[in-house]
Amino acid sequence: MEPLQCGMSPIVGFRFSLHPMASNFVKVIKGALTDIDTSNVWLHTDDVSTIIRGKQIHVFNVAKALTLHTAKTGEHVALSGTFSIGCPGDSSGDVFLEKDDVLLNTDKTQQYVSSQFALYPMNNPDYMAVIYHEVERAKQQGVFNDSMHYASGIDGDIHDVFSFYEQAFTNALSDKHRHLVMTVSMSINSPSHGGS
Amino acid sequence: MEPLQCGMSPIVGFRFSLHPMASNFVKVIKGALTDIDTSNVWLHTDDVSTIIRGKQIHVFNVAKALTLHTAKTGEHVALSGTFSIGCPGDSSGDVFLEKDDVLLNTDKTQQYVSSQFALYPMNNPDYMAVIYHEVERAKQQGVFNDSMHYASGIDGDIHDVFSFYEQAFTNALSDKHRHLVMTVSMSINSPSHGGS
Repeated sequence: MEPLQCGMSPIVGFRFSLHPMASNFVKVIKGALTDIDTSNVWLHTDDVSTIIRGKQIHVFNVAKALTLHTAKTGEHVALSGTFSIGCPGDSSGDVFLEKDDVLLNTDKTQQYVSSQFALYPMNNPDYMAVIYHEVERAKQQGVFNDSMHYASGIDGDIHDVFSFYEQAFTNALSDKHRHLVMTVSMSINSPSHGGS
Repeated sequence: MEPLQCGMSPIVGFRFSLHPMASNFVKVIKGALTDIDTSNVWLHTDDVSTIIRGKQIHVFNVAKALTLHTAKTGEHVALSGTFSIGCPGDSSGDVFLEKDDVLLNTDKTQQYVSSQFALYPMNNPDYMAVIYHEVERAKQQGVFNDSMHYASGIDGDIHDVFSFYEQAFTNALSDKHRHLVMTVSMSINSPSHGGS
């Protein structure tokens, strides 16, 4: 039997798919990966998704920058992904933990995004309280959009929304409960929402 | 404080986004929703995702049928979604549990799909053993594709792949641990994979 202890590693990962709803989607994605500075994260793309790993601040910075860059094409863009930390089955490699904390992508362009998220604190009997706390915080911060089955709606400017998500990820983790998962889906430039 | 007991409801939900990578994506999605029989599930679409709820067999049947129908356009199609059951914060409404067990979508067209999944059995100290068991079963069934950070690769014919996922969802649930989440990402007709 393999040891099933929860990991002590500070590695944060984000496995995601970023979809521009356009025939030239390959060009759009490759352009984003070229123009954004991803040198602070380990990055690998396969035929279904892309994974970035590294320090939490850089993983969130690159995730936001890729999304913002793709959104600026004006195409309808959809992002779906899962942030993870402390997965007991994870390996320690494929990560750049020696990087400093200077953020490499600093585009402040405003961009309305509509999104949904769910938190899954693993092996934590009090996990619903953790979730409710973050939903309440979203309401206080003005980024809460809607209640719904299995998720909560978060919308606003992309910088406010990603800031909320990174803080939620930090808050939901504890020394006792080190395996945390957060799913995020995001829609930008959609004909279905009227944000500006 | 709200009661945080895990739900006893047999309602299964699937919150997903289905993305054809094409300029006419709205037409493709609307066509799928019209041509597929969704009358056995409660269905609601918002600006980010679509949710279907009902008996497990019908939720998986409709999820597969929508994906297959969209794939048959020949466009590159991406599916991302989360299957859930027993969420303590869920409400009991918005579900068609009185339906019989006759499946309404029976298109047997073969279609190669490449996908990735992750199981999150909530509040279960033995959750890693549950996950390893299903990954091992995928290998035995010939649908295991690859190991990777935070997920496992599953590929093959769409019917074999969805059958594996429905069985994994069933297996990972127990009377003691009634809140289960499973994320699935799928790519079809992608220029990045060589399936046929």
